[in-house]
Amino acid sequence: MPARRVSEISTSMIRRMFEIVERAKKEGREVINLSIGEPDFDTPPEIIELAYEYMNKGYTHYTSNMGLEELREVIAERYGVESGEVMITVGASEALLNASLAFMEENSKVVLHTPSFLSYFTYVKLCSARPVEVNTSDSNFLLQSEAVEGVMDSSVSALILNFPTNPSGAVMGQREIDEVYEIAEDHSAVVISDEVYDRIYYDKKPGTLAGKENAVVINAFSKTLAMTGWRIGFVIAEKGLLDQMLKVHQVNGVCAPAFAQKAVAEYLADGKDREFVRDMVDEFRRRRDFVVRRLGKYFDLAVPEGAFYVFAKAYEGFVEELLMEKGVALTPGTPFGSGFDDYFRLSYATSMENLKKAVERIEEFMEERAKG
Amino acid sequence: MPARRVSEISTSMIRRMFEIVERAKKEGREVINLSIGEPDFDTPPEIIELAYEYMNKGYTHYTSNMGLEELREVIAERYGVESGEVMITVGASEALLNASLAFMEENSKVVLHTPSFLSYFTYVKLCSARPVEVNTSDSNFLLQSEAVEGVMDSSVSALILNFPTNPSGAVMGQREIDEVYEIAEDHSAVVISDEVYDRIYYDKKPGTLAGKENAVVINAFSKTLAMTGWRIGFVIAEKGLLDQMLKVHQVNGVCAPAFAQKAVAEYLADGKDREFVRDMVDEFRRRRDFVVRRLGKYFDLAVPEGAFYVFAKAYEGFVEELLMEKGVALTPGTPFGSGFDDYFRLSYATSMENLKKAVERIEEFMEERAKG
Repeated sequence: MPARRVSEISTSMIRRMFEIVERAKKEGREVINLSIGEPDFDTPPEIIELAYEYMNKGYTHYTSNMGLEELREVIAERYGVESGEVMITVGASEALLNASLAFMEENSKVVLHTPSFLSYFTYVKLCSARPVEVNTSDSNFLLQSEAVEGVMDSSVSALILNFPTNPSGAVMGQREIDEVYEIAEDHSAVVISDEVYDRIYYDKKPGTLAGKENAVVINAFSKTLAMTGWRIGFVIAEKGLLDQMLKVHQVNGVCAPAFAQKAVAEYLADGKDREFVRDMVDEFRRRRDFVVRRLGKYFDLAVPEGAFYVFAKAYEGFVEELLMEKGVALTPGTPFGSGFDDYFRLSYATSMENLKKAVERIEEFMEERAKG
Repeated sequence: MPARRVSEISTSMIRRMFEIVERAKKEGREVINLSIGEPDFDTPPEIIELAYEYMNKGYTHYTSNMGLEELREVIAERYGVESGEVMITVGASEALLNASLAFMEENSKVVLHTPSFLSYFTYVKLCSARPVEVNTSDSNFLLQSEAVEGVMDSSVSALILNFPTNPSGAVMGQREIDEVYEIAEDHSAVVISDEVYDRIYYDKKPGTLAGKENAVVINAFSKTLAMTGWRIGFVIAEKGLLDQMLKVHQVNGVCAPAFAQKAVAEYLADGKDREFVRDMVDEFRRRRDFVVRRLGKYFDLAVPEGAFYVFAKAYEGFVEELLMEKGVALTPGTPFGSGFDDYFRLSYATSMENLKKAVERIEEFMEERAKG
């Protein structure tokens, strides 16, 4: 018998989309997939060469649960914290589950800004806590202090922040995010700040909660170094909080791949990531500008300041119709929180060529629809 | 504030041992470490070459949450199950946490045979369930059906089995393990069978619960292919159970490293693992025989039939005294369950040279002690 905590997690949404895509393919339609949540870039070849070198040097065993010291140091230096405040994890997801189990009390409330990554709801349910949604659609997907104040009380154990946001690409600056942090701190709630898209931004620079006493910052190299398949993330938090998360990490991810830790440490120490990230962001900016320019005519959309998604309002059923009629797969808004059934997420983590084809088909669809 | 479920997890035991080792080192003692839980062998070079090849072929992205089909198929074939009943995970630990969250109900009981791996207690606590220990020290560390019958009732949600056992090396044959499984099934409890040492056995062949309707079999390549630092494990279970675990895995480990999955799939398909495992087990057998022959004179010990540990009775405080006086680090019995304070675990996953030196020091210690 499944435990109650998992019975409440539904996978029907994902299954349904999968079935629709399969149906479209069966009908012989070439499907352009704009629902992908990872960069279409490959891992930098230098990292591959370093990983191979260190595999051959015996970095094929467990590392300490906290991670390799050399990697923790280079991360700590960049954030201006101590290496004792950095723990390496198996991607950001493992870190999020560790933080959830460590800080979300059973039957407590956990505050989320919506729209947000559907996994956050799952973490809350796995901890037998209750999600409290703060809908940000009226404030350009930014989290307003007053809205946070409005939901905080002593039954809130944690807050999850994600800026730049998946799916909206919204970015909170340092001052903005600090304000939200302070409200949470006043209520002794732990802030879990998922900053995995922090280096993929266009004009407004995202703030970070690294170094704050009551915050757990979660990040990874998955998105910024195109290393989703390597499973390497990290947490920055004050030692007392890290100790609690370590209790879970020791029996969960245990350690990130040893050679990957070593390779990334050396790559970062040499500062090689800066050029890679710059080139990737330049390309994402080109694509964002293209999508926003062409689709802005048809949809009410906030220009994304970060990540690689556009989140916009259409109507309920739009995603299914578009897929069946034109073979373009988007993600429906429903799983991102209550009240987003008529939204869609478009990921521009795909080639410009694909993107052009997809946008043309969406335009066609909208024009045909306008004509009735 | 930490959540209650983690507050009850103590790390003081591990910390204390760590501090003692540090103290011994500070006093200038060369410490021989026999407390290691991983093979001292390096990953087969063929796997490293394959991983490098597939990294360069773009296997650096997410795989599906279930894992690469080619790896699932080769595993399924060996176990005689369908590939739909196999899920690839980030090592055995992630799989254990996924299974725990999926099947251990809050406030229910979870049955463990002790002595057993200390992490099992942590999984139970993370699920707010209660561990029920079945002490096996009077039955050669094997789990007797009557003992299981004695603790089963409707409040038991799960049973954790681990044969070959860490720390005792006990092995249950197919008929023996089937008997225990049937008792659990009669009580609708899920059996989580951690079989990570299944290929490291000497004479008696371990049974498996793969293919049983109500069992979740957890395994990994960490121990058998000396790949602890690669983070690649797997689960075999009937689809309904796997679906529940998938809900956790999707937001936890997500997928094992892509190139590692691909490399292991090819290595297994070519049957290259058989020779590697045979050579490793031959070497472990040599070491086991050596340790048992030499230390059997001083300690009451059951000859281990599998894994790479000897678990034996000494007296409370023995481990600390030996470390401080002779610089040999063992693991005290305390964390392996109630009533094992006077036991120790010795890992022979170290070179014969180290092992000889350590055994001589233990003999010295015991002879000196006998003389008073």
